[in-house]
Amino acid sequence: MANRRKERQKGALGSLKKQGESVYGDLAAGRFPRFVMPSRSVNNIVYDRKTRQYVLGSSSSQRSSGNSSQLRSFTQLMWLAFFANRLTKEKKSSTLRDVYYSSQAFAVEFDDQAESDNIIVDLEAVTSRPREDFQIFPEERSTIFGDLDVEYTIPGYEGKRMNLANHPDGYSIGPSLTTADLVGTSAEMVIAIEKGGLFTRFVEEQVDKKFKSIIVNTGGQAPRSTRTLLKRLHEEMGLPVVVLTDGDVYGEHIAMVIKSGSANAAHLRELTVPDAKWVGVWATDIEKYDLPTIPMTEADIKRCHDLKKDPRYESGIWRKELDVFLRIKKKAELEAFSKYGLTNITDKYLPPKLELAKSL
Amino acid sequence: MANRRKERQKGALGSLKKQGESVYGDLAAGRFPRFVMPSRSVNNIVYDRKTRQYVLGSSSSQRSSGNSSQLRSFTQLMWLAFFANRLTKEKKSSTLRDVYYSSQAFAVEFDDQAESDNIIVDLEAVTSRPREDFQIFPEERSTIFGDLDVEYTIPGYEGKRMNLANHPDGYSIGPSLTTADLVGTSAEMVIAIEKGGLFTRFVEEQVDKKFKSIIVNTGGQAPRSTRTLLKRLHEEMGLPVVVLTDGDVYGEHIAMVIKSGSANAAHLRELTVPDAKWVGVWATDIEKYDLPTIPMTEADIKRCHDLKKDPRYESGIWRKELDVFLRIKKKAELEAFSKYGLTNITDKYLPPKLELAKSL
Repeated sequence: MANRRKERQKGALGSLKKQGESVYGDLAAGRFPRFVMPSRSVNNIVYDRKTRQYVLGSSSSQRSSGNSSQLRSFTQLMWLAFFANRLTKEKKSSTLRDVYYSSQAFAVEFDDQAESDNIIVDLEAVTSRPREDFQIFPEERSTIFGDLDVEYTIPGYEGKRMNLANHPDGYSIGPSLTTADLVGTSAEMVIAIEKGGLFTRFVEEQVDKKFKSIIVNTGGQAPRSTRTLLKRLHEEMGLPVVVLTDGDVYGEHIAMVIKSGSANAAHLRELTVPDAKWVGVWATDIEKYDLPTIPMTEADIKRCHDLKKDPRYESGIWRKELDVFLRIKKKAELEAFSKYGLTNITDKYLPPKLELAKSL
Repeated sequence: MANRRKERQKGALGSLKKQGESVYGDLAAGRFPRFVMPSRSVNNIVYDRKTRQYVLGSSSSQRSSGNSSQLRSFTQLMWLAFFANRLTKEKKSSTLRDVYYSSQAFAVEFDDQAESDNIIVDLEAVTSRPREDFQIFPEERSTIFGDLDVEYTIPGYEGKRMNLANHPDGYSIGPSLTTADLVGTSAEMVIAIEKGGLFTRFVEEQVDKKFKSIIVNTGGQAPRSTRTLLKRLHEEMGLPVVVLTDGDVYGEHIAMVIKSGSANAAHLRELTVPDAKWVGVWATDIEKYDLPTIPMTEADIKRCHDLKKDPRYESGIWRKELDVFLRIKKKAELEAFSKYGLTNITDKYLPPKLELAKSL
C-alpha cells in the first residue's frame, strides 16, 4: 500500500525546493529574492459555499528582501524553510515552541514565540501545506478507540501494525498516528465526543461494537492532529463522522470547527471534514428530553449572537439551534442524561441520533 | 496473581456496609443516625514529616440527622453511599458530574455541582478511600509509554493483557489502566514529563530503551489517575519516579504535587509518591546551561513567596531552587534546550540528571 509519510515528505521537500529555486533564480537574475503567498489578511478570507469552509481569496502578499519593512520576515521565513527542510529530512518531530527556541542557535531573531508562530503559518501559506508535513506537530493530545488497523511510518516503528481496539482507555493521537497508514477497519462510522468521561462510558457500553464505530475523544476543541485524523478516516476509509458535544454554543462550535475549520486556517484543507454531522446535544434536545439545565450566561448569549453573523451558521440546524438556545437561554451538559441512568445516553439517546445523522 | 480490582471492590463495599450497619444500629437503638469522619477544616490539616505529606489531625466532624443544620448533608451523603454502592457493584464508571446529575433522578437536592463534589469528598473521608474505588473517575487524561505489561480488570476486558510499548503516541491513562493489574516490566524507572511535545521527543529518541524507563506525559498538573498509576508503579513494581518540568515555580509545584499531593486530599494516601524526585528544569540549570529565558511575572514571584511559607518547601532543592528563581527572576521552558539542538535534552541534559536522581 501507499506509504503516506513518504508521499507527504516527498511533496513537502519538493515544495521547499521549489521555493529555494525561486530564491536562487531571483539572485541569478539580479532581483531581490522574495516569497509570494496568498494574503491572510481579513479582507482576503472568504467563505466558500462550495467547499463549505473559509478559503483565501485572490489577493497575494509577499515577504521581499528588497523591501526594508519585509526584510526581517523574509529572513525569518528563509531560515524557517531551511530548518523545516532539515526537520523533514531527518524525520525529527518538533513543536511550535521548539522551532522558536531552535532559531536562537542560528542567531535568527524573533521577538517572541508569537512572531515565530506567525512565520510558521507563512510557510504553510507559501507551500499550501500544513506544518505537520514539515514535522511541526501540536502539543495537544486526544484519544481514539475502535477497530482500526494502522501501520506506522515513523522511524523505529516503520511497518509495524497496530489495532486500536485493545486498550479501553484509548490510544493517544499524536504524530505517529496522524502519519500512519490506515490499513483497515470494520467500523462504519466515527463518533467524536467532547469529553473524556463520556468517551469512557462509550467504550464501557461497547458503542464501538454495538454501532460499528470508532470513538474519538476530542477533549474539548479538537486539536489539529485529531482533525487531521478525522479527515483521513472520512476520506481514506469512507467513514461518516458524527460529533456529539455539550448542549451549548461552545459545543455547537466544536462541531463546526471539525466540519469547516477556522478562519485562521483558511489557507489549508487538511483540517476540515465538510461532511461531518453535529448530532447533539441540540438546544431542541434539551426540551425534548427534559434535561437538567444551566442558565446561559451573558457571555454565552453574546457568543450566540456573534455566531449568527457567521455565514457557516446561516442555515440548517446550525441556525435553528442557535435560535432555540437564544429562546430558552439554557444549556445542558452531555452528563445531564445521567439523570435518567448512566447508560441512558448510549441506550436511548444515541441510536435515534445516529439514524437521524444519515439524513442530515 | 492478585486481582487488584476485586480486592479494592471488596474493601470499598465493606466500608459502605460498615456505614450502613452503623446507621441501622443507630436507628435500632433509637439514636439519630450520623456519619463521623476526620475533620477536613484548615485547622485540622497538618504537615506530617514522617509520611512527607499533608494529613488530617485528630479532630473529627459529623453529618448528623439529629442536627437540623446537618440534616441536608446527612441525607446527601446517605444517598451518595447508596449510589456509590450501586456503581461499585455494577462496575459502571462515572464522573463527578455524572453523580451530580444522577442525584436528580432520586430527587436528592444539590444546589450545584460544587455541593455534590464536596459530599463526594466527604464519602472519601468517611471511608478513607479514594472515590475511584467507588467508580467515580476523573475526566482528565494523560499518557504512558514503555515496556509495561498490564492485565485489565474491567468488565469486557478481564484477563486481557497488554504491553504498553507498541503505540508510540502513548496509551491514555484512564479507569482501565489505573485499575489494571501490573504484571511485569523490564523498566528500571519512571520518567514523568510535563508536556506532550517532549513526551513525543522522548519516545522518538528511545528514552524508554536507552534508559530502561517508562515515560509518562502528565500534561501539566498530573491528573489523579496519573498520580495513582505513578504511585502503583513505584510501590508495586519498585520503580523510582523522576519528574521533569518546565523551569518555573509552576513546574516545581507539579513535581511537588506528584510527590506529596495536595492539602485538600490530606485524607488520602493513594495519590502521592513521597519518594518521587524532581530532577529539573531547576533554576540553577537555567544558569548552568545558559538557557533562553522568559522574565518572571509579578504573579510568578508572588507564587514563589507563597510556596516558601509551605512546610514542604522549607529545605533541600525545593527551597534552594525557589531562592534561585527569586534571585534570577527568570524562568525557562523544557523546549529551551532546543537552542542546542532538538536532541540536546535527551542526549546531554537527561543522563547526568538521572544519575543525580539516585543521590537526591
